[in-house]
Amino acid sequence: MFTNVEHIGIAVRNLAVSNELFTRLFNQLPYRQEEVESEGVVTSFFKINETKVELLEATRPDCPIAGFIEKRGEGVHHIAFEVDDIEAEMARLREEGFRLLSEVPKRGADNKWVCFLHPKDTQGVLIELCQEIRP
Amino acid sequence: MFTNVEHIGIAVRNLAVSNELFTRLFNQLPYRQEEVESEGVVTSFFKINETKVELLEATRPDCPIAGFIEKRGEGVHHIAFEVDDIEAEMARLREEGFRLLSEVPKRGADNKWVCFLHPKDTQGVLIELCQEIRP
Repeated sequence: MFTNVEHIGIAVRNLAVSNELFTRLFNQLPYRQEEVESEGVVTSFFKINETKVELLEATRPDCPIAGFIEKRGEGVHHIAFEVDDIEAEMARLREEGFRLLSEVPKRGADNKWVCFLHPKDTQGVLIELCQEIRP
Repeated sequence: MFTNVEHIGIAVRNLAVSNELFTRLFNQLPYRQEEVESEGVVTSFFKINETKVELLEATRPDCPIAGFIEKRGEGVHHIAFEVDDIEAEMARLREEGFRLLSEVPKRGADNKWVCFLHPKDTQGVLIELCQEIRP
């Protein structure tokens, strides 16, 4: 079950510049910054009610965020939905004909299991499923 | 003050096709459909926790959604943030140097006062402020 819009991921060229801009926009500071080396990104997070805005800057030219910016420029990169049972949702969506970008959940930023759907199956919107990793 | 991610607006070519697709994705039916003649769109809404996903199909070729799809294809068109006092936020953001696309709030879909920010000032993300119209 989809339980929340967990975050909105925005690809940016320069995280320092964007942190300053979104701080003025939201009138609040980012509450956290994190590098995810496996994905080649450094990210920062703002929180509006129960949804985060995650800014993503590429740390190397061969990562997905660098490719996205090269092709489309800065902007919304993905929408992440929290689900209550990621394996069950992956099975349900596979059954519905959606292609998943990984066979099993992967470890993502912010202590989450994550799985992306193929954006060609969701009309150009890159959709992430995520679920908190429980200790 | 920004109080919620009120909705995520997604531009689609064919609302009937997209309603079917997002129904399978979210495992729920859209709860409402609405035409906003002034904007040249017909919209449908899904709700995930406190955030709506709004699908938008153009009803005429000269409206912003038709232009967006022509230029970029289907995908995320805008992010709408609920604010507690839209006139105060508009004044604050103008002061911070953001350009607003209307001088005063306009009537939008879903019984809201709305105002858009110039996407060139927000790194390619079209941002809407909105506030419920009180009776």
